[in-house]
Amino acid sequence: MNIIIKDVSIVTMNENNDIIKNGYIVINQEKIKEVGYGEYNGDCKDYKIINGKNSCVMPGLVNCHTHAAMTLLRGYGEGLPLMKWLNEKIWPMEAKFREEHIRVGAKLAIIEMIRTGTTTFNDMYFFQKEVLEVAQEFNIRAVLGTPIIGDAWEEQLKSAVQLNDFVKEYSKNEDMIKTMIAPHAPYTLSKEALIRVAEIAKQQYIGVHIHISETQDEVDMIKSKYDLTPTEFLLSTGILDNKVVGAHCVHMTDNDIDILRDKEVSVAYNPQSNMKLASGVARIAEMLDNGVNVCLGTDGTSSNNNLNMFEEMETGALLQKLWYKDTTKLNGSDMLNIGTINGAKALGFQKLGRIEEGYKADLVMIDMNRPNMIPRYDIDSNIVFAASGNEVHTVIINGEIVLYNGEFLNIDEEKVLYESNKFCENLI
Amino acid sequence: MNIIIKDVSIVTMNENNDIIKNGYIVINQEKIKEVGYGEYNGDCKDYKIINGKNSCVMPGLVNCHTHAAMTLLRGYGEGLPLMKWLNEKIWPMEAKFREEHIRVGAKLAIIEMIRTGTTTFNDMYFFQKEVLEVAQEFNIRAVLGTPIIGDAWEEQLKSAVQLNDFVKEYSKNEDMIKTMIAPHAPYTLSKEALIRVAEIAKQQYIGVHIHISETQDEVDMIKSKYDLTPTEFLLSTGILDNKVVGAHCVHMTDNDIDILRDKEVSVAYNPQSNMKLASGVARIAEMLDNGVNVCLGTDGTSSNNNLNMFEEMETGALLQKLWYKDTTKLNGSDMLNIGTINGAKALGFQKLGRIEEGYKADLVMIDMNRPNMIPRYDIDSNIVFAASGNEVHTVIINGEIVLYNGEFLNIDEEKVLYESNKFCENLI
Ligand SMILES: [Zn+2]
Ligand SMILES: [Zn+2]
Repeated sequence: MNIIIKDVSIVTMNENNDIIKNGYIVINQEKIKEVGYGEYNGDCKDYKIINGKNSCVMPGLVNCHTHAAMTLLRGYGEGLPLMKWLNEKIWPMEAKFREEHIRVGAKLAIIEMIRTGTTTFNDMYFFQKEVLEVAQEFNIRAVLGTPIIGDAWEEQLKSAVQLNDFVKEYSKNEDMIKTMIAPHAPYTLSKEALIRVAEIAKQQYIGVHIHISETQDEVDMIKSKYDLTPTEFLLSTGILDNKVVGAHCVHMTDNDIDILRDKEVSVAYNPQSNMKLASGVARIAEMLDNGVNVCLGTDGTSSNNNLNMFEEMETGALLQKLWYKDTTKLNGSDMLNIGTINGAKALGFQKLGRIEEGYKADLVMIDMNRPNMIPRYDIDSNIVFAASGNEVHTVIINGEIVLYNGEFLNIDEEKVLYESNKFCENLI
Repeated sequence: MNIIIKDVSIVTMNENNDIIKNGYIVINQEKIKEVGYGEYNGDCKDYKIINGKNSCVMPGLVNCHTHAAMTLLRGYGEGLPLMKWLNEKIWPMEAKFREEHIRVGAKLAIIEMIRTGTTTFNDMYFFQKEVLEVAQEFNIRAVLGTPIIGDAWEEQLKSAVQLNDFVKEYSKNEDMIKTMIAPHAPYTLSKEALIRVAEIAKQQYIGVHIHISETQDEVDMIKSKYDLTPTEFLLSTGILDNKVVGAHCVHMTDNDIDILRDKEVSVAYNPQSNMKLASGVARIAEMLDNGVNVCLGTDGTSSNNNLNMFEEMETGALLQKLWYKDTTKLNGSDMLNIGTINGAKALGFQKLGRIEEGYKADLVMIDMNRPNMIPRYDIDSNIVFAASGNEVHTVIINGEIVLYNGEFLNIDEEKVLYESNKFCENLI
């Protein structure tokens, strides 16, 4: 589509984090053709005009770690001790999930994500062909990975490669949907399995999406088994020779952080999940200082309980300030980098995550005419610390308008909400 | 007004935290007349009917510690070190504030609060007669307190008593607006001043609103001066013999917590502010276990940066789970108690904070037909952990509908937003 957004404040997230107080964006097909200050004086014929008055526009948010279809489990078994919750509630329910569950859960998830400004997500869950179809239908950018876990890893690894081949064939646009291989975690797979995953990922040029050091228990387990930290252990398996997104990375030594930087592992920070599951606080500020690429994720809704990246940005920044007893850690623009361009880099999308000429047109428009968005001394800070996510009114993904003035253009939201609610009522 | 809300889910916050999946509420004038299960079969003549389908209704949230008009400073001087921020940005700007500033800031604040479900707030800031007028005009329940701070305390204390007399005279309804005396903090007032404040508060039957042990620095200062903790010091001045709301209470000994319980001090937990200013984590779960009345506040928007109590409930609960390394701490209903009935108790409003016969009709209706509010296994948990605050569509305060289906009935919101934005543009 060809679109001009006029009269708008632009949070570019370019190299200098420039903010254009009043400017315009020209979108040609899937890409940003021009970004400028002041009025647009070019030809507007064949362009849809969007008036940006009282709005600001920012790059779409990139959710680098989630289990989308876990929306079906939102609020289920709340307040139980962790292992009781997993053993008696979450795992037995997940064991029942089939294609139709994932389809319903993914639809609900994607609607929630788009409404709160997420335009790309990195998924790790079962039956990913369903997620592929829904993501294509709803026009959201997605990275798919079926977890490889436990003894059935050889079969699952084969499936992961097949999924990758299938997605390449089936997906209309490789830059919209791709896969990662998703070995669940160092403590849920044998060394042999991890070595094999590493080899296959390398051979097939597929990235790796894995949980690393989410809990102290996991670290202790790996330590007692291999006398290595989980990160050191992964290094020894060759996993980190691939393009890796490591979710959580809560319990990390200085040496682990050096390894992450040297192997260019992207760390997906999941602050709300880490708080809710009492996992701990990731050393994000230090990782950033050491040159690690930090991105952001919500984790699944059973441990969050939403997919709202605005909340994640705010809580994530606040938690780092508290943890380091330093109010200067992770300010608004730091966090916006983490939520946008760093995520795009982590997932290996070229020219994504900035509002700049030649970049993919994934844009989110935010209503600034809300009480919580006034005054506007610092737009970055308003977005990260004052916004709730519901200020998002218009979302453009890959040059297509998906949400416009609060309404989905090609998704029957009412139907999805009604059906998923009904579906869940029959689930428990 | 006489109102019937039909076909609605009700989060009662009564003694048993009952949730009525489908019921009705009858409001007569300022009070709740009846709460029932299923359909309402009584006479509907002379009642405005509100259809609650796909909504849930809960008691209005009570913000027990804020500085409302600091909305003018939202995002101002962000990211500076704490003392530099206060010395070079916040305090010089505050010194310029006069009546008109407070009027503008309070209007913006109250709109933001009502939109996110707050129906009562406890304010500590300058020129409270302005806040009184705006609160009455906008029909929100408020407790007003002008800070007593530094050497001019005698004059300020006199003003506080005058304000109290004025409010009693001027306010149409003592149960809607009242005052507290607001000695700023133990470290910003002499012992003599605090003793005198304590005496006057007692004589005049006025409650006390004070910051206690927000930072470690403050604790160290009082310790070195009096060889007491701030709480012990306040006990020695007689302040705690009054009805006290203590904001923050971050750095507390076991003995301090015992004192808070014995003196029936209500603790206003301000998690987002404590994180943003890197103050520390209050021992809320232990205070609750020890029988302290814990309520919730946002603090001012310069350290938050919004007045959204939904965010405060979520972050507050997550932070306690993390801090105590225990996922069972502060579940949804615990946090809803803190956000509603405990706040009403803290501020001394009788029959407020529950949906129960005879209680004041301060009610908030939440749209459950949102992607993040589905499924509905656990409504308490959805409200605390999945909602963002923008699900609030209708707010009733003291039996009057203030916000209806997302629109203010008697407030020109557009005008307030436009004017406050303009005002702030000229401020810096
Ligand atoms: Zn995960
Ligand atoms: Zn305060």
